[in-house]
Amino acid sequence: MEHLPKSIVNLIDQFDKLPGIGPKTAKKFAFYMLKKNQAELNIFSQAISELKNNITLCQSCLTLADNKLCKICSDKNRDHSTLAVVADPLDLLAIEKSGDYTGIYFVLGGVIDQPNGIGPDQLNIQKLEEKIKANTINEIIIATNPDMEGETTALYLSKLLKKYNIKTSRLARGLPLGSDIEYADEITLSSALKNRNEF
Amino acid sequence: MEHLPKSIVNLIDQFDKLPGIGPKTAKKFAFYMLKKNQAELNIFSQAISELKNNITLCQSCLTLADNKLCKICSDKNRDHSTLAVVADPLDLLAIEKSGDYTGIYFVLGGVIDQPNGIGPDQLNIQKLEEKIKANTINEIIIATNPDMEGETTALYLSKLLKKYNIKTSRLARGLPLGSDIEYADEITLSSALKNRNEF
Repeated sequence: MEHLPKSIVNLIDQFDKLPGIGPKTAKKFAFYMLKKNQAELNIFSQAISELKNNITLCQSCLTLADNKLCKICSDKNRDHSTLAVVADPLDLLAIEKSGDYTGIYFVLGGVIDQPNGIGPDQLNIQKLEEKIKANTINEIIIATNPDMEGETTALYLSKLLKKYNIKTSRLARGLPLGSDIEYADEITLSSALKNRNEF
Repeated sequence: MEHLPKSIVNLIDQFDKLPGIGPKTAKKFAFYMLKKNQAELNIFSQAISELKNNITLCQSCLTLADNKLCKICSDKNRDHSTLAVVADPLDLLAIEKSGDYTGIYFVLGGVIDQPNGIGPDQLNIQKLEEKIKANTINEIIIATNPDMEGETTALYLSKLLKKYNIKTSRLARGLPLGSDIEYADEITLSSALKNRNEF
Protein backbone atom coordinates (compact mmCIF):
# COMPACT_ATOMS: atom_id res chain seq x y z
CA MET A 1 0.00 0.00 0.00
CA GLU A 2 2.85 2.38 0.77
CA HIS A 3 3.59 2.73 -2.93
CA LEU A 4 0.07 3.82 -3.86
CA PRO A 5 -1.24 7.38 -4.13
CA LYS A 6 -3.24 8.50 -1.10
CA SER A 7 -6.57 8.80 -2.92
CA ILE A 8 -6.37 5.13 -4.00
CA VAL A 9 -5.46 4.03 -0.47
CA ASN A 10 -8.47 6.02 0.82
CA LEU A 11 -10.84 4.21 -1.50
CA ILE A 12 -9.29 0.81 -0.74
CA ASP A 13 -9.87 1.53 2.98
CA GLN A 14 -13.55 2.21 2.27
CA PHE A 15 -14.10 -0.91 0.15
CA ASP A 16 -12.19 -2.92 2.75
CA LYS A 17 -14.95 -2.17 5.29
CA LEU A 18 -17.68 -3.82 3.18
CA PRO A 19 -18.82 -7.17 4.62
CA GLY A 20 -16.80 -10.11 3.33
CA ILE A 21 -14.31 -7.90 1.47
CA GLY A 22 -10.61 -8.14 2.33
CA PRO A 23 -7.74 -5.88 1.32
CA LYS A 24 -7.02 -7.81 -1.90
CA THR A 25 -10.55 -7.50 -3.26
CA ALA A 26 -10.74 -3.89 -2.05
CA LYS A 27 -7.61 -3.16 -4.08
CA LYS A 28 -9.14 -4.88 -7.11
CA PHE A 29 -12.28 -2.72 -6.76
CA ALA A 30 -10.24 0.49 -6.43
CA PHE A 31 -8.22 -0.27 -9.57
CA TYR A 32 -11.44 -1.12 -11.40
CA MET A 33 -12.80 2.30 -10.37
CA LEU A 34 -9.65 3.96 -11.71
CA LYS A 35 -10.67 2.86 -15.20
CA LYS A 36 -13.99 4.73 -14.89
CA ASN A 37 -14.30 8.30 -16.10
CA GLN A 38 -15.11 11.13 -13.70
CA ALA A 39 -18.82 11.17 -14.66
CA GLU A 40 -19.18 7.49 -13.74
CA LEU A 41 -17.31 8.06 -10.49
CA ASN A 42 -19.67 10.92 -9.67
CA ILE A 43 -22.74 8.72 -10.24
CA PHE A 44 -21.39 6.08 -7.86
CA SER A 45 -20.35 8.75 -5.36
CA GLN A 46 -23.79 10.32 -5.47
CA ALA A 47 -25.55 6.97 -5.06
CA ILE A 48 -23.71 6.60 -1.76
CA SER A 49 -24.13 10.15 -0.42
CA GLU A 50 -27.82 10.21 -1.35
CA LEU A 51 -28.57 6.70 -0.13
CA LYS A 52 -30.65 7.89 2.79
CA ASN A 53 -32.41 10.72 0.96
CA ASN A 54 -36.10 10.04 0.48
CA ILE A 55 -35.93 6.78 2.37
CA THR A 56 -38.53 6.44 5.05
CA LEU A 57 -40.12 3.60 6.99
CA CYS A 58 -43.56 2.41 5.92
CA GLN A 59 -45.94 3.64 8.64
CA SER A 60 -47.79 0.35 8.59
CA CYS A 61 -45.12 -2.36 8.39
CA LEU A 62 -41.88 -0.44 9.13
CA THR A 63 -40.05 -1.71 6.05
CA LEU A 64 -37.92 0.69 3.98
CA ALA A 65 -40.10 2.71 1.63
CA ASP A 66 -40.19 5.72 -0.69
CA ASN A 67 -43.54 6.91 0.67
CA LYS A 68 -45.56 6.84 3.86
CA LEU A 69 -46.93 3.44 2.89
CA CYS A 70 -44.84 0.80 1.11
CA LYS A 71 -46.05 -0.79 -2.12
CA ILE A 72 -47.21 -3.93 -0.31
CA CYS A 73 -49.17 -2.18 2.43
CA SER A 74 -50.84 0.13 -0.10
CA ASP A 75 -51.75 -2.77 -2.40
CA LYS A 76 -55.47 -3.51 -1.99
CA ASN A 77 -55.12 -6.86 -3.75
CA ARG A 78 -53.00 -8.29 -0.95
CA ASP A 79 -54.54 -10.27 1.87
CA HIS A 80 -54.42 -7.78 4.76
CA SER A 81 -55.61 -10.38 7.25
CA THR A 82 -52.45 -12.48 7.05
CA LEU A 83 -49.40 -10.94 8.67
CA ALA A 84 -45.85 -12.24 8.29
CA VAL A 85 -43.50 -10.96 10.99
CA VAL A 86 -39.93 -10.71 9.68
CA ALA A 87 -36.70 -9.53 11.29
CA ASP A 88 -35.62 -7.10 8.56
CA PRO A 89 -36.50 -5.82 5.07
CA LEU A 90 -34.14 -8.34 3.39
CA ASP A 91 -36.19 -11.23 4.78
CA LEU A 92 -39.32 -9.53 3.45
CA LEU A 93 -37.71 -9.36 0.00
CA ALA A 94 -36.73 -13.03 0.11
CA ILE A 95 -40.29 -14.11 0.95
CA GLU A 96 -41.68 -11.81 -1.76
CA LYS A 97 -39.30 -13.42 -4.24
CA SER A 98 -40.81 -16.86 -3.53
CA GLY A 99 -43.99 -15.45 -5.09
CA ASP A 100 -46.14 -17.63 -2.86
CA TYR A 101 -47.11 -15.13 -0.21
CA THR A 102 -50.02 -12.76 -0.75
CA GLY A 103 -50.38 -11.38 2.79
CA ILE A 104 -48.75 -8.35 4.35
CA TYR A 105 -45.66 -7.97 6.52
CA PHE A 106 -44.37 -6.45 9.70
CA VAL A 107 -40.66 -5.69 10.19
CA LEU A 108 -39.39 -6.25 13.74
CA GLY A 109 -36.12 -4.44 13.11
CA GLY A 110 -34.00 -7.33 14.39
CA VAL A 111 -34.24 -10.33 16.67
CA ILE A 112 -33.85 -10.83 20.39
CA ASP A 113 -30.14 -11.25 21.04
CA GLN A 114 -29.55 -10.77 24.77
CA PRO A 115 -25.76 -11.34 24.70
CA ASN A 116 -25.51 -8.37 22.31
CA GLY A 117 -27.91 -6.27 24.36
CA ILE A 118 -30.92 -6.58 22.08
CA GLY A 119 -34.02 -7.35 24.12
CA PRO A 120 -37.70 -7.18 23.12
CA ASP A 121 -37.71 -3.45 23.98
CA GLN A 122 -35.25 -2.70 21.19
CA LEU A 123 -37.59 -4.29 18.62
CA ASN A 124 -40.78 -2.86 17.13
CA ILE A 125 -42.95 -5.14 19.25
CA GLN A 126 -45.14 -2.39 20.72
CA LYS A 127 -45.91 -1.21 17.19
CA LEU A 128 -46.68 -4.81 16.20
CA GLU A 129 -49.26 -5.08 18.99
CA GLU A 130 -50.80 -1.75 17.96
CA LYS A 131 -51.09 -3.06 14.39
CA ILE A 132 -52.73 -6.27 15.57
CA LYS A 133 -55.19 -4.36 17.74
CA ALA A 134 -56.10 -1.89 15.02
CA ASN A 135 -56.62 -4.39 12.19
CA THR A 136 -58.44 -7.64 11.54
CA ILE A 137 -55.65 -10.18 11.44
CA ASN A 138 -56.60 -13.82 11.02
CA GLU A 139 -53.15 -15.37 11.01
CA ILE A 140 -49.69 -14.33 12.10
CA ILE A 141 -46.75 -16.12 10.48
CA ILE A 142 -43.59 -15.67 12.49
CA ALA A 143 -40.92 -15.75 9.80
CA THR A 144 -37.69 -15.34 11.73
CA ASN A 145 -34.55 -17.36 10.93
CA PRO A 146 -34.38 -20.92 12.25
CA ASP A 147 -31.35 -20.08 14.39
CA MET A 148 -30.91 -19.40 18.10
CA GLU A 149 -31.94 -15.73 18.05
CA GLY A 150 -34.71 -16.29 15.52
CA GLU A 151 -36.19 -19.17 17.55
CA THR A 152 -35.97 -17.16 20.78
CA THR A 153 -37.78 -14.28 19.13
CA ALA A 154 -40.43 -16.59 17.65
CA LEU A 155 -41.03 -18.23 21.02
CA TYR A 156 -41.26 -14.85 22.76
CA LEU A 157 -43.73 -13.54 20.17
CA SER A 158 -45.88 -16.67 20.20
CA LYS A 159 -46.31 -16.35 23.98
CA LEU A 160 -46.90 -12.60 23.84
CA LEU A 161 -49.48 -12.83 21.06
CA LYS A 162 -51.45 -15.67 22.68
CA LYS A 163 -53.79 -13.15 24.33
CA TYR A 164 -55.08 -11.96 20.95
CA ASN A 165 -56.39 -15.44 20.11
CA ILE A 166 -55.07 -15.31 16.58
CA LYS A 167 -53.77 -18.40 14.77
CA THR A 168 -49.99 -18.07 14.95
CA SER A 169 -47.66 -20.18 12.80
CA ARG A 170 -43.97 -20.57 12.11
CA LEU A 171 -42.12 -21.28 8.86
CA ALA A 172 -41.65 -25.04 8.46
CA ARG A 173 -38.32 -26.66 9.16
CA GLY A 174 -37.17 -29.39 6.83
CA LEU A 175 -34.63 -30.38 4.23
CA PRO A 176 -33.81 -27.57 1.80
CA LEU A 177 -33.89 -28.27 -1.94
CA GLY A 178 -30.75 -29.95 -3.21
CA SER A 179 -29.53 -30.93 0.25
CA ASP A 180 -28.20 -34.30 1.34
CA ILE A 181 -29.88 -36.39 4.06
CA GLU A 182 -26.48 -37.80 4.95
CA TYR A 183 -25.25 -34.38 6.01
CA ALA A 184 -28.46 -32.96 7.51
CA ASP A 185 -28.33 -32.14 11.23
CA GLU A 186 -30.48 -34.14 13.65
CA ILE A 187 -32.93 -31.33 14.45
CA THR A 188 -33.62 -30.57 10.79
CA LEU A 189 -34.01 -34.26 10.01
CA SER A 190 -36.38 -34.92 12.88
CA SER A 191 -38.44 -31.87 11.84
CA ALA A 192 -38.52 -33.16 8.26
CA LEU A 193 -39.73 -36.54 9.52
CA LYS A 194 -42.36 -35.08 11.84
CA ASN A 195 -43.70 -32.73 9.16
CA ARG A 196 -43.54 -35.31 6.35
CA ASN A 197 -45.99 -34.71 3.49
CA GLU A 198 -48.27 -37.35 2.02
CA PHE A 199 -48.22 -37.83 -1.75
CA MET B 1 -35.99 -5.18 -6.12
CA GLU B 2 -39.39 -3.71 -6.91
CA HIS B 3 -40.15 -3.42 -3.20
CA LEU B 4 -37.06 -1.36 -2.44
CA PRO B 5 -36.78 2.44 -2.34
CA LYS B 6 -35.17 3.92 -5.45
CA SER B 7 -32.04 5.21 -3.71
CA ILE B 8 -31.22 1.69 -2.47
CA VAL B 9 -31.79 0.22 -5.93
CA ASN B 10 -29.44 2.90 -7.35
CA LEU B 11 -26.66 1.91 -4.98
CA ILE B 12 -27.21 -1.81 -5.58
CA ASP B 13 -26.84 -1.13 -9.33
CA GLN B 14 -23.50 0.57 -8.69
CA PHE B 15 -22.11 -2.18 -6.44
CA ASP B 16 -23.38 -4.75 -8.94
CA LYS B 17 -20.91 -3.38 -11.52
CA LEU B 18 -17.85 -4.13 -9.37
CA PRO B 19 -15.82 -7.08 -10.67
CA GLY B 20 -16.97 -10.42 -9.25
CA ILE B 21 -19.98 -8.91 -7.47
CA GLY B 22 -23.46 -10.19 -8.27
CA PRO B 23 -26.86 -8.76 -7.34
CA LYS B 24 -27.04 -10.66 -4.02
CA THR B 25 -23.73 -9.35 -2.72
CA ALA B 26 -24.53 -5.88 -4.10
CA LYS B 27 -27.75 -5.93 -2.06
CA LYS B 28 -25.82 -7.03 1.03
CA PHE B 29 -23.39 -4.13 0.55
CA ALA B 30 -26.23 -1.61 0.10
CA PHE B 31 -27.97 -2.75 3.28
CA TYR B 32 -24.65 -2.62 5.12
CA MET B 33 -24.27 0.99 3.95
CA LEU B 34 -27.76 1.79 5.26
CA LYS B 35 -26.48 1.16 8.78
CA LYS B 36 -23.81 3.87 8.35
CA ASN B 37 -24.49 7.43 9.41
CA GLN B 38 -24.49 10.27 6.88
CA ALA B 39 -20.95 11.37 7.81
CA GLU B 40 -19.61 7.90 7.05
CA LEU B 41 -21.53 7.79 3.78
CA ASN B 42 -20.04 11.15 2.83
CA ILE B 43 -16.51 9.91 3.48
CA PHE B 44 -17.08 6.89 1.21
CA SER B 45 -18.79 9.05 -1.39
CA GLN B 46 -15.90 11.52 -1.37
CA ALA B 47 -13.29 8.76 -1.63
CA ILE B 48 -14.93 7.75 -4.91
CA SER B 49 -15.49 11.20 -6.39
CA GLU B 50 -11.97 12.34 -5.50
CA LEU B 51 -10.26 9.12 -6.55
CA LYS B 52 -8.56 10.70 -9.51
CA ASN B 53 -7.68 13.99 -7.81
CA ASN B 54 -3.95 14.40 -7.28
CA ILE B 55 -3.16 11.12 -9.01
CA THR B 56 -0.46 11.42 -11.61
CA LEU B 57 1.93 9.08 -13.37
CA CYS B 58 5.51 8.94 -12.16
CA GLN B 59 7.56 10.67 -14.87
CA SER B 60 10.25 8.05 -14.64
CA CYS B 61 8.44 4.70 -14.37
CA LEU B 62 4.82 5.61 -15.28
CA THR B 63 3.30 4.00 -12.22
CA LEU B 64 0.52 5.80 -10.30
CA ALA B 65 1.95 8.40 -7.98
CA ASP B 66 1.15 11.42 -5.80
CA ASN B 67 4.07 13.44 -7.14
CA LYS B 68 6.17 13.81 -10.27
CA LEU B 69 8.38 10.96 -9.11
CA CYS B 70 7.02 7.91 -7.27
CA LYS B 71 8.50 6.85 -3.94
CA ILE B 72 10.55 4.10 -5.55
CA CYS B 73 12.05 6.23 -8.31
CA SER B 74 12.92 8.99 -5.85
CA ASP B 75 14.53 6.55 -3.40
CA LYS B 76 18.31 6.86 -3.68
CA ASN B 77 18.84 3.62 -1.77
CA ARG B 78 17.30 1.54 -4.56
CA ASP B 79 19.44 -0.01 -7.24
CA HIS B 80 18.72 2.23 -10.23
CA SER B 81 20.72 0.01 -12.58
CA THR B 82 18.25 -2.90 -12.38
CA LEU B 83 14.95 -2.33 -14.15
CA ALA B 84 11.88 -4.56 -13.82
CA VAL B 85 9.39 -4.09 -16.64
CA VAL B 86 5.82 -4.79 -15.45
CA ALA B 87 2.45 -4.62 -17.19
CA ASP B 88 0.65 -2.50 -14.59
CA PRO B 89 0.98 -0.90 -11.13
CA LEU B 90 -0.62 -3.93 -9.41
CA ASP B 91 2.21 -6.18 -10.64
CA LEU B 92 4.68 -3.63 -9.29
CA LEU B 93 2.96 -3.79 -5.89
CA ALA B 94 3.04 -7.59 -5.89
CA ILE B 95 6.78 -7.67 -6.57
CA GLU B 96 7.39 -4.99 -3.93
CA LYS B 97 5.47 -7.11 -1.43
CA SER B 98 7.87 -10.02 -1.96
CA GLY B 99 10.47 -7.72 -0.38
CA ASP B 100 13.25 -9.29 -2.45
CA TYR B 101 13.59 -6.69 -5.17
CA THR B 102 15.69 -3.58 -4.66
CA GLY B 103 15.79 -2.28 -8.23
CA ILE B 104 13.44 0.13 -9.98
CA TYR B 105 10.45 -0.46 -12.25
CA PHE B 106 8.91 0.54 -15.53
CA VAL B 107 5.16 0.21 -16.15
CA LEU B 108 4.23 -0.80 -19.71
CA GLY B 109 0.56 0.04 -19.25
CA GLY B 110 -0.63 -3.37 -20.47
CA VAL B 111 0.54 -6.26 -22.61
CA ILE B 112 0.46 -6.99 -26.33
CA ASP B 113 -2.97 -8.44 -27.06
CA GLN B 114 -3.52 -8.26 -30.83
CA PRO B 115 -7.02 -9.89 -30.83
CA ASN B 116 -8.17 -7.03 -28.59
CA GLY B 117 -6.38 -4.40 -30.66
CA ILE B 118 -3.49 -3.77 -28.29
CA GLY B 119 -0.21 -3.72 -30.20
CA PRO B 120 3.24 -2.50 -29.11
CA ASP B 121 2.24 1.05 -30.12
CA GLN B 122 -0.44 1.17 -27.44
CA LEU B 123 2.15 0.41 -24.73
CA ASN B 124 4.75 2.73 -23.20
CA ILE B 125 7.56 1.06 -25.16
CA GLN B 126 8.95 4.26 -26.67
CA LYS B 127 9.21 5.74 -23.19
CA LEU B 128 10.94 2.53 -22.01
CA GLU B 129 13.58 2.89 -24.71
CA GLU B 130 14.08 6.55 -23.77
CA LYS B 131 14.59 5.51 -20.15
CA ILE B 132 17.10 2.85 -21.13
CA LYS B 133 19.03 5.31 -23.31
CA ALA B 134 19.09 8.04 -20.67
CA ASN B 135 20.18 5.88 -17.73
CA THR B 136 22.83 3.30 -16.89
CA ILE B 137 20.86 0.07 -16.77
CA ASN B 138 22.77 -3.15 -16.15
CA GLU B 139 19.88 -5.60 -16.17
CA ILE B 140 16.31 -5.61 -17.41
CA ILE B 141 13.93 -8.11 -15.80
CA ILE B 142 10.85 -8.61 -17.92
CA ALA B 143 8.17 -9.35 -15.31
CA THR B 144 5.04 -9.93 -17.36
CA ASN B 145 2.57 -12.71 -16.55
CA PRO B 146 3.46 -16.24 -17.72
CA ASP B 147 0.41 -16.34 -20.01
CA MET B 148 -0.06 -15.94 -23.76
CA GLU B 149 -0.10 -12.13 -23.83
CA GLY B 150 2.61 -11.81 -21.19
CA GLU B 151 4.91 -14.23 -23.05
CA THR B 152 4.28 -12.47 -26.37
CA THR B 153 5.14 -9.14 -24.79
CA ALA B 154 8.26 -10.56 -23.13
CA LEU B 155 9.44 -12.07 -26.42
CA TYR B 156 8.78 -8.82 -28.29
CA LEU B 157 10.67 -6.78 -25.70
CA SER B 158 13.62 -9.20 -25.50
CA LYS B 159 14.09 -8.89 -29.29
CA LEU B 160 13.61 -5.13 -29.29
CA LEU B 161 16.04 -4.53 -26.42
CA LYS B 162 18.79 -6.76 -27.85
CA LYS B 163 20.38 -3.74 -29.53
CA TYR B 164 21.16 -2.12 -26.17
CA ASN B 165 23.39 -5.05 -25.18
CA ILE B 166 21.90 -5.19 -21.67
CA LYS B 167 21.46 -8.45 -19.76
CA THR B 168 17.75 -9.20 -20.10
CA SER B 169 16.03 -11.80 -17.93
CA ARG B 170 12.57 -13.19 -17.34
CA LEU B 171 10.84 -14.28 -14.10
CA ALA B 172 11.44 -18.01 -13.54
CA ARG B 173 8.72 -20.51 -14.31
CA GLY B 174 8.28 -23.38 -11.89
CA LEU B 175 6.02 -24.98 -9.34
CA PRO B 176 4.33 -22.42 -7.05
CA LEU B 177 4.43 -22.93 -3.27
CA GLY B 178 1.81 -25.40 -2.06
CA SER B 179 1.08 -26.79 -5.52
CA ASP B 180 0.80 -30.44 -6.51
CA ILE B 181 3.12 -32.04 -9.08
CA GLU B 182 0.27 -34.38 -10.04
CA TYR B 183 -1.80 -31.48 -11.30
CA ALA B 184 0.96 -29.27 -12.75
CA ASP B 185 0.77 -28.66 -16.50
CA GLU B 186 3.52 -30.03 -18.74
CA ILE B 187 5.11 -26.69 -19.57
CA THR B 188 5.38 -25.66 -15.91
CA LEU B 189 6.77 -29.05 -14.97
CA SER B 190 9.37 -29.12 -17.73
CA SER B 191 10.43 -25.56 -16.73
CA ALA B 192 10.69 -26.69 -13.11
CA LEU B 193 12.87 -29.61 -14.17
CA LYS B 194 15.09 -27.52 -16.42
CA ASN B 195 15.58 -24.82 -13.80
CA ARG B 196 16.01 -27.25 -10.90
CA ASN B 197 18.09 -25.92 -7.99
CA GLU B 198 20.92 -27.81 -6.31
CA PHE B 199 20.83 -28.19 -2.53
